[in-house]
Amino acid sequence: MGNRKLLKLGALIHGVGGNISGWRHPDVPADASVSFPFYKQQAQTAEAGKFDLLFIADGLYINEQSIPHFLNRFEPITILSALAAATTHIGLVGTLSSSYSEPFTVARQFGSIDHISGGRAGWNIVTSPLEGSARNYSKAQHPSHDERYQIAEEYLEVVRGLWDSWEDDAFVRDKESGVFFNPDKLHRLNHLGKYFSIEGPLNIARSRQGHPVVFQAGSSESGKRLAALSADAVFTGHDTIEEAKAFYKDVKDRTVLAGRSRDDIVILPGIGPIIGRTQEEAERKYEELAGLVSIEKALDYLGRFFDHHDFRQYPLDDPFPELGDIGANSFRSGTDKIKRYAKEHGLTLRQVALRSATPRTAFIGTPEKIADLIQQWYEEEAADGFIISPPLPGWLKDFVELVVPILQERGLFRTEYESDTLRGNLGLRVPANRYTAAVQLNT
Amino acid sequence: MGNRKLLKLGALIHGVGGNISGWRHPDVPADASVSFPFYKQQAQTAEAGKFDLLFIADGLYINEQSIPHFLNRFEPITILSALAAATTHIGLVGTLSSSYSEPFTVARQFGSIDHISGGRAGWNIVTSPLEGSARNYSKAQHPSHDERYQIAEEYLEVVRGLWDSWEDDAFVRDKESGVFFNPDKLHRLNHLGKYFSIEGPLNIARSRQGHPVVFQAGSSESGKRLAALSADAVFTGHDTIEEAKAFYKDVKDRTVLAGRSRDDIVILPGIGPIIGRTQEEAERKYEELAGLVSIEKALDYLGRFFDHHDFRQYPLDDPFPELGDIGANSFRSGTDKIKRYAKEHGLTLRQVALRSATPRTAFIGTPEKIADLIQQWYEEEAADGFIISPPLPGWLKDFVELVVPILQERGLFRTEYESDTLRGNLGLRVPANRYTAAVQLNT
Repeated sequence: MGNRKLLKLGALIHGVGGNISGWRHPDVPADASVSFPFYKQQAQTAEAGKFDLLFIADGLYINEQSIPHFLNRFEPITILSALAAATTHIGLVGTLSSSYSEPFTVARQFGSIDHISGGRAGWNIVTSPLEGSARNYSKAQHPSHDERYQIAEEYLEVVRGLWDSWEDDAFVRDKESGVFFNPDKLHRLNHLGKYFSIEGPLNIARSRQGHPVVFQAGSSESGKRLAALSADAVFTGHDTIEEAKAFYKDVKDRTVLAGRSRDDIVILPGIGPIIGRTQEEAERKYEELAGLVSIEKALDYLGRFFDHHDFRQYPLDDPFPELGDIGANSFRSGTDKIKRYAKEHGLTLRQVALRSATPRTAFIGTPEKIADLIQQWYEEEAADGFIISPPLPGWLKDFVELVVPILQERGLFRTEYESDTLRGNLGLRVPANRYTAAVQLNT
Repeated sequence: MGNRKLLKLGALIHGVGGNISGWRHPDVPADASVSFPFYKQQAQTAEAGKFDLLFIADGLYINEQSIPHFLNRFEPITILSALAAATTHIGLVGTLSSSYSEPFTVARQFGSIDHISGGRAGWNIVTSPLEGSARNYSKAQHPSHDERYQIAEEYLEVVRGLWDSWEDDAFVRDKESGVFFNPDKLHRLNHLGKYFSIEGPLNIARSRQGHPVVFQAGSSESGKRLAALSADAVFTGHDTIEEAKAFYKDVKDRTVLAGRSRDDIVILPGIGPIIGRTQEEAERKYEELAGLVSIEKALDYLGRFFDHHDFRQYPLDDPFPELGDIGANSFRSGTDKIKRYAKEHGLTLRQVALRSATPRTAFIGTPEKIADLIQQWYEEEAADGFIISPPLPGWLKDFVELVVPILQERGLFRTEYESDTLRGNLGLRVPANRYTAAVQLNT
């Protein structure tokens, strides 16, 4: 592996969790999604495990069919900021949509978290898959998938520009002479684009990271393009190692084509390990989890991916219905996959719904088996690391206590933090300030 | 005084502070505006003093003439959230503009801080005075003063509606039956107004406060109208007790006219006490502070109020120049006051400039004198309490250690928190959920 960076690990802190009925499990505090003590405990568990980062997902529209965690949860900027005060080394990454926010505000908020945390902020730029979001934001229409990504590209360019408003040595703060800052080191962006016109400067300095770490989480063509152009990290998801390897190679190659280095982008698939002392114990845990979901809830959950399509109208045990274009404008890569998978395996609607509600992945088994799989994915370049998304929130602790020590023994994962910035731990360079760099070229 | 509530106290945590050269003082950490340890310490000092709340101000546009604290400071939502994790009882109030933000996001963010802090969030709704803000938000024009307040009124109505999305007993969370929430207790706002169309529901429950506490800080006609209609508290500023009493009576009367009770709104002028063991020591502290401001900086600062008029062109020690209409278009009441004051007292340009840069108020003297003034303003109904805005940040500690015990001895101020919510400490009712209330009326 030569000089390859060590494995990276993130923890999705997800309240009552991504499984629609996981909250029913006796071990889950049913109010976890709005419990700060719970978030703090999860963050500190991940930090005890020397994780690179914690990750807070988000969405901007709910209805009666939304999964329990989505209905009543913390807003990412607020919970990341609060966790900054409750942790010391772990990175703090959260989702914020470029389709329904203002670049000046978002640049400030992540810049501010970066200062509060001493250089541990990360922003997962998403474009909002849910059509209903427009109706919570006084918009006549939800932009199309392609347009959302055009907006996102310009948005990210603006935000990075605003983050460079002040050169690193701009704030002189000389009490004797009374010079607070050097006006030559203050730069207005004066951006005038298709979607945004932003003068600047931003009213906060660059922090130790230069720019907060930028994540990208869409796996469509436009998503990969955005990642290659400008993201520092990708949060992705794959069912098989082959699929993951193809994606990994694709994104790394595109990044190089965009004029950057393979090491400038970190690829982190999400996995939801289910760990038992024996394979049987792990299987029992999966069955227990899956058994919490009723078929009605599973159908509604499936509908969410397809623009809230009503799947209760179809016979449960007939083959999965033909859906045409339904779902093409929301979670495109996800819905395509479900359609393909159902066809290939000749599954009924009931089977697709229950399996979608409680996905059964390869990562079920003993700590050694989980560690083996992680090692294999990492060594075969399917991943630079993983975002651990425990199917039940308490299982994060199992991963930290049972799997992390094995990864450490094998020399795959750190035993102490290398750095106290997220960029430092991910092995990513601090980006040069565009204005400082330009001056250097001229001299 | 009958059943009148005890005095209320807030602390403006303001980084290097509002004085243009206060950062030069040897006691001030010159990076205070982006130092989380500093903010944490200030918040904990105020909490040790049993203050009702801390207050974070804000602005959305800077240029080379902005005061040092504005150039590089924390964004309010982030620093309030971080301080929520570092405190237990003190209220957390911050400024956020209704002219350059989205009600769905703002309702969520303050709702989220309210949950994280266990019921201590407050929002100071402002409309953004600075024209340049528009240029940081892709807007062709900054809305006029009147229009900004029309937007603000509708905005606040929407936010309060979103905060009521879920009735207090909506989340059943019955693990046995699998019922997470009662759909009858979820309400869509379906607001369709002049400026906003917002469907809802909000994706976070009401917290223990029902609604976060809403502050208003504008003293114009439109500002007072908004306060009377819907605010829980007013942050204001007055040079004399007479002025303060007139404002107090006006806002309380308007609140009653709007169908609310006098106790439904708390009026808190900002004061910047300078405390010495003797009057002479306090005067020396004022002179030391004023002496940090160079005459050039003072002239530039004065110019900001007069449309950036260049005051360096006049002889410093001649009488304050005749300016005609200069300044009439920007901070009119402020510039009129300066012109009048200069004439009445026969001041030179140098004197006017230096006094404008470091205002000299009545609140300069011994702890007993400060306490006497506070008691007088409170008892004569010029104020329900005060927002302490220390001219140098470290002087907050002086106020807590020297003045608070006197106020406590006199029975004017609490010795222990009455509540662990901001509403509880301010003596404000938890607003009924509009939907719950409607049902009760029908039964």
